[in-house]
Amino acid sequence: MLRNVLYLAVGTIILSGCISVQTTECVSESKESRGLRHVVMFKFKEGTSNQQIREIEDAFRALPGKVDEICDFEWGTDVSVENLQQGFTHCFLVTFRSEADRAAYLPNPDHKEFGKILGPHLDKVLVLDYWATK
Amino acid sequence: MLRNVLYLAVGTIILSGCISVQTTECVSESKESRGLRHVVMFKFKEGTSNQQIREIEDAFRALPGKVDEICDFEWGTDVSVENLQQGFTHCFLVTFRSEADRAAYLPNPDHKEFGKILGPHLDKVLVLDYWATK
Repeated sequence: MLRNVLYLAVGTIILSGCISVQTTECVSESKESRGLRHVVMFKFKEGTSNQQIREIEDAFRALPGKVDEICDFEWGTDVSVENLQQGFTHCFLVTFRSEADRAAYLPNPDHKEFGKILGPHLDKVLVLDYWATK
Repeated sequence: MLRNVLYLAVGTIILSGCISVQTTECVSESKESRGLRHVVMFKFKEGTSNQQIREIEDAFRALPGKVDEICDFEWGTDVSVENLQQGFTHCFLVTFRSEADRAAYLPNPDHKEFGKILGPHLDKVLVLDYWATK
């Protein structure tokens, strides 16, 4: 009996691990998609200091902790080797579960506040959203 | 005894599900990253037919089945609402485990063959790679 409980407990722990991994894929609304991806790329103005860039990175990275509608978040700086990055140096991948969540995010005060930090240093921006499918 | 085997079997099935989900995050080399993302965006020439676009989409989608170095793959067409997509209509997100895997992918004959299908219809392309971190 005790052994059965142990097996079940182990199974439950493993199962909850699975659920948490699947949650980050943001598939709750449509099983055919991993979520609504919001790809954001920046090129900063010449003269923007490394310190200022770091502050912008940190401000964006803080958003998932402030905005509930962000289901998943990742980012990085360009390390491509084909010279087709069109001047962009930063890419942020924000994932939403639904168009409604995106609609709540765009005018969110914390998002707007981030825009104020970013705006003065922005040379170019690209935003493309897609429903992620295989 | 039979019941124990059953519990173990269920646990094993659940566990293998977990492993397969984690594999798609391509974290094998560096635990701090989900993998080397290769973001590819296209804008097609005016006059490219829907049929031709479909053939290009299908040809790109076939690559993960042909190129072992592709660890994860997803794509979608632009549904953004901010009008900052800079004309790009398609986004493909290819993930590698390492720079060595990317270096093997770029000159891969199947990748080159895809380039031949794509090339005549390409107006603009953007490629930006980043090591995905939170």
